[in-house]
Amino acid sequence: MNVKIKKLGNGITNVIINDPKTYNSLSLKTLRDLLKTFIKLDKDNNTRVVILEGSGKGFSAGHNLKEVRGIKNRSNHFKLFNLCSKLMMKIVEGKKPVIAKVHGAAYAAGCQLAASCDLAYSTTTATFATPGVNIGLFCSTPMVAVSRKVTRKIMMKMLLTGEPINAKYAKDIGLINDCYTSKKLNSEVLKVAKTISSKSNLTIKIGKQAFYKQLEMPLEDAYKFTSKMMTLNMASQDAKEGISAFLQKRKPNWKNK
Amino acid sequence: MNVKIKKLGNGITNVIINDPKTYNSLSLKTLRDLLKTFIKLDKDNNTRVVILEGSGKGFSAGHNLKEVRGIKNRSNHFKLFNLCSKLMMKIVEGKKPVIAKVHGAAYAAGCQLAASCDLAYSTTTATFATPGVNIGLFCSTPMVAVSRKVTRKIMMKMLLTGEPINAKYAKDIGLINDCYTSKKLNSEVLKVAKTISSKSNLTIKIGKQAFYKQLEMPLEDAYKFTSKMMTLNMASQDAKEGISAFLQKRKPNWKNK
Amino acid sequence: MNVKIKKLGNGITNVIINDPKTYNSLSLKTLRDLLKTFIKLDKDNNTRVVILEGSGKGFSAGHNLKEVRGIKNRSNHFKLFNLCSKLMMKIVEGKKPVIAKVHGAAYAAGCQLAASCDLAYSTTTATFATPGVNIGLFCSTPMVAVSRKVTRKIMMKMLLTGEPINAKYAKDIGLINDCYTSKKLNSEVLKVAKTISSKSNLTIKIGKQAFYKQLEMPLEDAYKFTSKMMTLNMASQDAKEGISAFLQKRKPNWKNK
Repeated sequence: MNVKIKKLGNGITNVIINDPKTYNSLSLKTLRDLLKTFIKLDKDNNTRVVILEGSGKGFSAGHNLKEVRGIKNRSNHFKLFNLCSKLMMKIVEGKKPVIAKVHGAAYAAGCQLAASCDLAYSTTTATFATPGVNIGLFCSTPMVAVSRKVTRKIMMKMLLTGEPINAKYAKDIGLINDCYTSKKLNSEVLKVAKTISSKSNLTIKIGKQAFYKQLEMPLEDAYKFTSKMMTLNMASQDAKEGISAFLQKRKPNWKNK
Repeated sequence: MNVKIKKLGNGITNVIINDPKTYNSLSLKTLRDLLKTFIKLDKDNNTRVVILEGSGKGFSAGHNLKEVRGIKNRSNHFKLFNLCSKLMMKIVEGKKPVIAKVHGAAYAAGCQLAASCDLAYSTTTATFATPGVNIGLFCSTPMVAVSRKVTRKIMMKMLLTGEPINAKYAKDIGLINDCYTSKKLNSEVLKVAKTISSKSNLTIKIGKQAFYKQLEMPLEDAYKFTSKMMTLNMASQDAKEGISAFLQKRKPNWKNK
Repeated sequence: MNVKIKKLGNGITNVIINDPKTYNSLSLKTLRDLLKTFIKLDKDNNTRVVILEGSGKGFSAGHNLKEVRGIKNRSNHFKLFNLCSKLMMKIVEGKKPVIAKVHGAAYAAGCQLAASCDLAYSTTTATFATPGVNIGLFCSTPMVAVSRKVTRKIMMKMLLTGEPINAKYAKDIGLINDCYTSKKLNSEVLKVAKTISSKSNLTIKIGKQAFYKQLEMPLEDAYKFTSKMMTLNMASQDAKEGISAFLQKRKPNWKNK
C-alpha cells in the first residue's frame, strides 16, 4: 500500500500518501490505494473526519511522469486521468469532511488533490502550482478542481505560466483556508478536525453532500433541493436533540457520533 | 406586524425586522410579514431602494428554534423552509435594490438574509455565522445564498465548524461590501442608497433583474440575453435622456424616478 | 483601420485600439476592426500571445455614445450590442492567450474588454467602471464578463452606483492580475508574455480552450471532458518531448512554437 492510515482519536483518521521516493507522485498504484482508502473510510463508523497529508518532503508532485511516459496508448492514458478524476470526485461526493494538510509542494494533480478537499491548511513555506504547461501537458484535469476555488484570472496566470504560488497567496485567493509555521500546523489542523468531529456525524453528512450539489443548480432549484434536505435533517433525532440542548443551554448528546 | 416600514425620503424605504425579544428570529409570522412587505414595496412607485435592518440588539438570529421544535411533521417543516426560501428569492428577483444594514449578529437564516441582499454593510463589531451544525441542523438553505457570495473553502469552514466570522473578514471574503463604526454606518448606507436612488428607476430595474439571471447562463446565452435587455433599455426615454445629458454635459432628468 | 498591429518578437503580437480622439470608444468600426484582427491573429502561426492596449490617454471608454444616440431602431441597437458580444466571445474562445494592458480608464464595454482577456495588468493609476447607470443604460452586457471575474456584491456596487474603482482594488477583487507604475507596466507585461510564448503553442491552445468550457459544466462532466482533452494533449509530440526533457533535466524543444 502506498497509503498509510492512522487513527488519531475522536473519530479523526489520518491518511498519509506514502511514496516519498517519488514525492508522493500520484501513480496508478497510489491513485488506486487512495481511492480504495476513501471508499473504505466513507463507510467506516469510526471515522468522522479525514486529514490527508504526504509523507517525506512534501504533499504530492502530481502524476508519476516516468509512468506516464511509459504508457503507450491513448486508452491507457485516458484510464489514468479518469482514475485520478474518480478519486477527486470521491473526496467531493463522500460523506466525511476531508482536510488537506500540506507541506512542501502540492503540484499539478497534487494541487488538484489539495483543492478537492473540503478544507486545506499548509505550512507557510508550502507552494502550489499547476505547472503542466512546462512539460507540454496542460493541467487540464487539475484546473477543474482549482478553478472552482479561485477566480479566473488568477487561475489563468497559474495555468499559462506554470509558476508556483506561495502559501500566503494561496490563502488570499481561497485555495487554502490558512497557513501556519510547520511547528504549529499539526495542532491547528487537529483543532479544526476536533471541532468538526464534535458535531453530529449525520448532520455533517447531509450538509456536505448537499453543499456541492446545490452549487451546481440554478438558485430556485437549489432552494427546493436544500429545503428538502433540511426537512430530512430536521426529522433526525440529532436535530431534535441539538435544538432542545440549545434551548436548555446544555451540551447536546448526539446519537450519530 | 413584525416588520416596520419607514420612508426616509429620496425614494428610500427602511424595512425594520421588529421582533427584538427573539433577536428578530425569522418565525413563520416574521417571514410572512417580510415577504408581504417586499411584494408590496416592489410595486410601490415611491420606493426606489430598500434598506433592511433589525431592531434591538442585532440583525437576525435566524429561524425561531422554539417554533421549529414545536412543529411536529415533515410537511410543516418543509413549508417553513420553503417560505424562508421564497422570501430570499423575492429579494433576489425583485426590481428594487435591497441593502442590508447589519449590526450585532446575522446568523443562520439571518446570515442568509444579509447574503441575499444586493448590497450589505455592517458595523465593525457585527458577526456572521452559519452555525446550524451546532444544533444538529446543517445550514443547508442558508448556504445557498452565502455560497454564491464567498469561495468554497471559506464557506465550508463556516458550515463545518459553525464558528462566527467578524465584519472585517466578511468584507474581505465578499459577504458584505464594507463595515463602519456604529456611529458612521447609518450615514454611509444612506449615502449609497441616495446614489442609487438618483438613477433612473427603470434602468436599475432592468439591470438588477438581468444580473442574477445572466449569472446562471453559459457565456453565449448570457450575451444573447443581455444584448436583448440592453436593446430594450436603449428604447427607453431614460436611456435617450441620459445619453443626451452626458453628451451635453448636463444632469439627466429621469422620467422614471 | 482603428486597430494597429505590432509584432514584438517571440511570437508576441501587440494589438492597439487606435481611436484616441474618442478615447478608443468601441464604435461599430472599431468593434469590426478588432473582431477581424482577433480572427486573423488566431490563425496566424507567428502569434503565440496577444497584448491588447489602447492608444492615447487610456484603454477604452466603452461604446461610442454619439453613434449609439444616432442609431434609430431597435434592430440596429441589437446588432451593435451583439457585435460587441461577438468580439468578447472571440477573445474567450480563441486559441491564443490575450493579455489586457490597461492605462487610464477601462469603462463600460472597455471594462468588459479588459475583463474578457485571459490576463490583465494595469498602471497603478488606471480606473475601471461599469457606469452605464449614470446615462440610463445599465451595463448589462459588460456585467456578463465582469461578474464572472469578481464576487457578486462587489459587482452589484459597481453596477448600481456606477462609481469607478482603482487599480489596487481591481487587483484585490480579481478583475486584473496586477498593477505597476506606468514606467514598469510594459516590461512586466512583456515578461509574462514571454514566459507564455516560451511554452508549446499547441499545449496552450488545448488548455485555454478547455478552461472556459469546463467552467460551465457540472463537476463530473468537467472531469470527463478534461480527461479527454489531457489524453489528446498527451498524444502530441510536445507532451512527449516535454516529459522527456523534464526527466532528462534539459530544456524542451517544442515542435509547435
